[in-house]
Amino acid sequence: MASIEMIVAARARLRGHARRTPLLSSPFLNDIAGRRIFVKAECLQHTGSFKFRGGWAAVSSLDPAVRARGVIAFSSGNHAQGVALAAKLHGVPSVIIMPSDAPKLKIANTRALGAEVVLFDRATQDRDALGAELSAERKLTLIKPFDEPQVIAGQGTTGLEIAEQAEEEGVRAAEVLVPCGGGGLSSGIALALEASAPTFRVRPCEPYGFDDTARSLASGQIERNATLTGSICDAIITPQPGNITFPILRRLSGAGIVVSDDEALRAMAVAFTRLKIVVEPGGAVALAAALFHGEQLDEEDAIVVTSGGNVDADVFAKALALHG
Amino acid sequence: MASIEMIVAARARLRGHARRTPLLSSPFLNDIAGRRIFVKAECLQHTGSFKFRGGWAAVSSLDPAVRARGVIAFSSGNHAQGVALAAKLHGVPSVIIMPSDAPKLKIANTRALGAEVVLFDRATQDRDALGAELSAERKLTLIKPFDEPQVIAGQGTTGLEIAEQAEEEGVRAAEVLVPCGGGGLSSGIALALEASAPTFRVRPCEPYGFDDTARSLASGQIERNATLTGSICDAIITPQPGNITFPILRRLSGAGIVVSDDEALRAMAVAFTRLKIVVEPGGAVALAAALFHGEQLDEEDAIVVTSGGNVDADVFAKALALHG
Repeated sequence: MASIEMIVAARARLRGHARRTPLLSSPFLNDIAGRRIFVKAECLQHTGSFKFRGGWAAVSSLDPAVRARGVIAFSSGNHAQGVALAAKLHGVPSVIIMPSDAPKLKIANTRALGAEVVLFDRATQDRDALGAELSAERKLTLIKPFDEPQVIAGQGTTGLEIAEQAEEEGVRAAEVLVPCGGGGLSSGIALALEASAPTFRVRPCEPYGFDDTARSLASGQIERNATLTGSICDAIITPQPGNITFPILRRLSGAGIVVSDDEALRAMAVAFTRLKIVVEPGGAVALAAALFHGEQLDEEDAIVVTSGGNVDADVFAKALALHG
Repeated sequence: MASIEMIVAARARLRGHARRTPLLSSPFLNDIAGRRIFVKAECLQHTGSFKFRGGWAAVSSLDPAVRARGVIAFSSGNHAQGVALAAKLHGVPSVIIMPSDAPKLKIANTRALGAEVVLFDRATQDRDALGAELSAERKLTLIKPFDEPQVIAGQGTTGLEIAEQAEEEGVRAAEVLVPCGGGGLSSGIALALEASAPTFRVRPCEPYGFDDTARSLASGQIERNATLTGSICDAIITPQPGNITFPILRRLSGAGIVVSDDEALRAMAVAFTRLKIVVEPGGAVALAAALFHGEQLDEEDAIVVTSGGNVDADVFAKALALHG
C-alpha cells in the first residue's frame, strides 16, 4: 500500500531528477476567484506533466537486476513520456504500447525519449495480451499508470512540495484542487497532506460526463464512466477510480468538483494571460474549478494543481481565440 | 554606479517578494541546439517579466518619507506593470505615463495593479514635460526603466540566481544569452556573474534592424537605432544603450547576437511545445539565438533568459500557426 513513508522515500530518490515546480500566483486570478489562489505548475515538470514523478519513483524503486531488463507501460500520453524518460535516465530499456492512431507527435516524442514504441490496432488487437506476451518474453516490469503504490508515492511528492511552498506563502488552511483521472495524483497528494499539512484537503476535479470519481465519492463505492470518448480533457479520462487510489480518496478527500470543457478552455486562457504557463485541457480542470466554481469551496485559500501542458497547438489556439 | 554590493543588497530586499524563477531544460531543446540549453524563465516572474525585480529594487531603496509621496514612470509595457505592482505592495502611489494609443489591455492591467495611468497624445503632447510637471507638483520620484543603478541592481539578482541554479545543474562555464533593450537586465546579470560565476559570459541578443547594442559593442561607442518601429519585439526596442549600462556591457559582455522576427516566433513555439511557458517575441530573442545561431557561441553550455511573457493572444496564436 502507498504510505507517507513511501512518499518521503520517493522524494529522496527524485531529488536532483524531478523538478521542484514553482507555486505561482497573480492578483488577477484572486480577483476572478474572489479568494487567494496558488497554482502548483506541474506542467513545468520534465516531459510536461507530473507523470515523470511517478515514472521515476517506480523505475528507481526496482531491484537493479530487475530494472536492467527494462520496463513496459501502456499509454498514449503523459504516462508514456514520464516512464520513457525515467527509464532512459536510468539507462534501462522501455517499451511503450500505444494505439496506432495516437497523435504522431506523441509517438515521435516517446521514441525521442528513448522508448521502443510498439503500436497496436485498437480494432483488431488485444492490447493486454500483446503487453503480457512482450513482458513474459523479455521479462519487463509493468509500470501501471496510477493503481500502483510506487507511482502514487511519486505523485505524492507534489503534495510534500505544496505543503512547504504554501507555508512559505503564509497559507494556514486550504483546499487543494487536483485534476483527477485514475486518482494517482489526487491520492498521492492526499496522503502527503494528511501527514504534512492536515488542515489542507484534496478536492478531485473532473470534466462533465467523466465524473467517475465525484460520483464514486458521493455513493461511497466505485462508479464507472458511461463512455470514454468525447471530452477534450483526454489526459484525465479513465474508466473508473483505481482499486488502490479510491479508498485513499474516500478516506481523505472532499467532494469532487465537475467543470465543463469550455471552462477548462477558459482556464487555459487565464493561465496564458496571467501566469504565462501552457496548460492542457485536462490539466486545467482544477484551475477552472477554483475560478468558476468557488461557491463549492469552504476554505479561504485554494491551491490548484495544473497537472500537464501537453496540448496541441491548434487546441491551445482555440482556447485563446475563444477566451484570450 | 551599479555594483555587486548593490545587487546583493537588492537580493535581500527582494526576498519573499520577487519569485526565484526556475531554470528549465528539455532534451528536445538540446537536440535542436546541439548543446545543453538552460532557460531562466523570467516570464514566470510577477507581472510576467523581470521588470518587477528592478521596480521592487528601486522602490524599496527609497527613503520612506520620499517613497511615501509616490513614484512615476514612463512605460507602455513591462516596466509600467513592474513599477505599479512594486509601488502597490509598498503601499505608495504610482503614476504611469502611457501613450494614449497603448494597447487597452496594458492600460487596464497597469490600472488594475494600482497605478494612476496618465495618458498622453504622442502627436501633440511632450511626454517628458508632462512627467516633469507631475513630478514637481506631487514630489514623485522618477523610476527610469534601465539607466538607473538600483534598477540595474534589481535586474542583476537574476544573475545571482543563474549562478546558483547553474551550479546545481553542474554547469561549469557557459554563455548567458539575454534579450537586450536598454541593457538593464544584461548589465545587471553581467555584474552579478563577474562576481559569482566568472567563467560565465553575457551575450546580449536583439532583433535584426534594432541591434544598437551589438553595433555599439562592435564599434566601442554608443550607436543608435535608425528607427524605433517595425519590430514585433516591442519590449526590447530602445533608441540606444544606456549611459550607465553600456560601459558595463563593453567591459564584461561578449559580442551581441542578432535574430530575425521569424526566429523569435519560432523560439516562442519551441518554448510552448517543449517548456510549457509563454514567451513574448522580445523575450524570446535569446532563446532564438541559442537555438538557431549556435555557431556564434563558444562554450558548450548556453543559459538563456526568457525575459517576459506579456504577449497578446493573436500574436501567440500566429507563432503557433507558423511554427507550432
